[in-house]
Amino acid sequence: MTKRAISFSDLKILVEAALVASGARADVAAIMAESVVRTEEAGVASHGLAYVPTYCEHVRIGKVDGQAVPRLERPKPALLVADAASGFAHPAIRLGFEALIPLAREMGVAALAIRNSYNAGVLGLHTEALAAAGLVGIGFTNAPASIAPAGGTKPVIGTNPFAFAVPDGKGGVLLSIDQSASVIAKSEVMKHAREGRPIPPGWALGPDGQPTTDANVGLSGSMAPSGGHKGVGIGLMVELLAAAASGATLGIDASPFSGPNGGPPRTGQFFLAIDAATSSGGLFGERAARLAEALTAQEGVRLPGARKEQARRRHRAAGTVEVDQGLYDKVAALAGAQA
Amino acid sequence: MTKRAISFSDLKILVEAALVASGARADVAAIMAESVVRTEEAGVASHGLAYVPTYCEHVRIGKVDGQAVPRLERPKPALLVADAASGFAHPAIRLGFEALIPLAREMGVAALAIRNSYNAGVLGLHTEALAAAGLVGIGFTNAPASIAPAGGTKPVIGTNPFAFAVPDGKGGVLLSIDQSASVIAKSEVMKHAREGRPIPPGWALGPDGQPTTDANVGLSGSMAPSGGHKGVGIGLMVELLAAAASGATLGIDASPFSGPNGGPPRTGQFFLAIDAATSSGGLFGERAARLAEALTAQEGVRLPGARKEQARRRHRAAGTVEVDQGLYDKVAALAGAQA
Repeated sequence: MTKRAISFSDLKILVEAALVASGARADVAAIMAESVVRTEEAGVASHGLAYVPTYCEHVRIGKVDGQAVPRLERPKPALLVADAASGFAHPAIRLGFEALIPLAREMGVAALAIRNSYNAGVLGLHTEALAAAGLVGIGFTNAPASIAPAGGTKPVIGTNPFAFAVPDGKGGVLLSIDQSASVIAKSEVMKHAREGRPIPPGWALGPDGQPTTDANVGLSGSMAPSGGHKGVGIGLMVELLAAAASGATLGIDASPFSGPNGGPPRTGQFFLAIDAATSSGGLFGERAARLAEALTAQEGVRLPGARKEQARRRHRAAGTVEVDQGLYDKVAALAGAQA
Repeated sequence: MTKRAISFSDLKILVEAALVASGARADVAAIMAESVVRTEEAGVASHGLAYVPTYCEHVRIGKVDGQAVPRLERPKPALLVADAASGFAHPAIRLGFEALIPLAREMGVAALAIRNSYNAGVLGLHTEALAAAGLVGIGFTNAPASIAPAGGTKPVIGTNPFAFAVPDGKGGVLLSIDQSASVIAKSEVMKHAREGRPIPPGWALGPDGQPTTDANVGLSGSMAPSGGHKGVGIGLMVELLAAAASGATLGIDASPFSGPNGGPPRTGQFFLAIDAATSSGGLFGERAARLAEALTAQEGVRLPGARKEQARRRHRAAGTVEVDQGLYDKVAALAGAQA
């Protein structure tokens, strides 16, 4: 596939134009475009520009309300609740974080529950924003059910990632964990199905609960949880926080994140921000740095999130990211612009 | 091994006497004995009476300060910090929870960091106490390093469990997740080593980072993380909360939980309590119950924690638990009582 280099600002303008042309309000389009730029900058191409045609389609058909105005409440002193109002997750997260960050500093810990939301993109980018503000950030997001419980055959939870990011004490991020409850992202199985290729053993199970290498059989069955029942345990915790504790839609009831059907998924997110400098009596920075050093002192070991950080440095130095030419043309067409 | 039935109250008296005879203050011994009873009641024999000889030895040699008085502070409105003062974890957790539960109800979310602590026993029993108080409870506890990072050979984190418990809306616990970051508990590998038996493939790695079935080689190497690098990710989150964010000792610096060497481990715990009824706008109970039903409706699937709950019912009906006669005799000897 042909690639083309594009500057951060041109990419942002392109995505904004495509979303506005699809029916999103200008400020919503700006937030989503900024997120796409940050995602491509971090090298996560699968969740960057590649998602924009779906975002535009979902706004056009009303699966996402591009005009939604998220609402924020504070029902208890350390607890924030945002209603994404069937719009994108990102504006609700942005609105919530503006309150969450000072609140966590003041209270020592604070939580943000988000309901009636949507796919949050790369979850770790959100928790990294908390870490960059000097807080330990933990995030959970749920998704349409695709993982069956150990011993069962019917999906009960989504690939349900959690993310965890730690400040470096200098306004940056020391390390960033972002992992799903499944062995592999569902999008990888969908890609293999589209390309008619078999999937490696261990990725998915058929509707009978048995392992399969047929991507389509896997898609009609369930995704294999990472670490067996322990992956299911993680995914259940994520579901109970991101969906149940936020009053959002459970994965078993949510419409798919891909394709035109089912109306707004109205899934949820849950974030926790912790003032670890205070909880540790001032020792957090030194302890976290010592742990990080025990990792990086070993040959072949990198800190979680190091690949994204490397990609950021490379792209910032170049001033551009590389995107697929065909994808660029598609988004440019959506924007009504010349490719 | 011969078993004997013992009533809850006789078991409590026995353990209290053994700990007091070893040098623990009466109130500390009472809290630890209560915890042993609750652990045996839940059927977790590995962490119940079986641990008492180690507890007694550690008090006798000063690896645990049996006279320690935990101190609790509230440095920020929603944040509690307990210093276990090189004593047992349980009295610090007890003291902390007395403040954490009303604080989480008031604030919507609250956190408790515990430093200079010790092995917390069955972590899930602590988070279940939060759930029984109507809160979503999350707990983290760190341990001496035994898991190497993906691609590395030197342990950087302990088997580091996390626990997550959810209220049932009726003063009880709907489900309770309690899982370590390793494929198997380290105590299982130690047991195989003592008995001179090989361990199954996938449990542990040698000092060279390669899989081994030799229990002793595994003990001199590292424990295999559950789900590979994703297990390491979970364990790192636990370490960064339970140790770094609490100002406790990292697993790489902590003395072992077993054996007489190294002085107090001074490891840590971190707990979060969330008023999910409020964060969900009153929907938490219904959503959690619906998710639980999607699990139990499948043949062969049980809720996490169901085995402990069954054991509780069985033991409460009988009014007794069954303990190993040899172990009973050992603890009775420590208590200076007649077996």
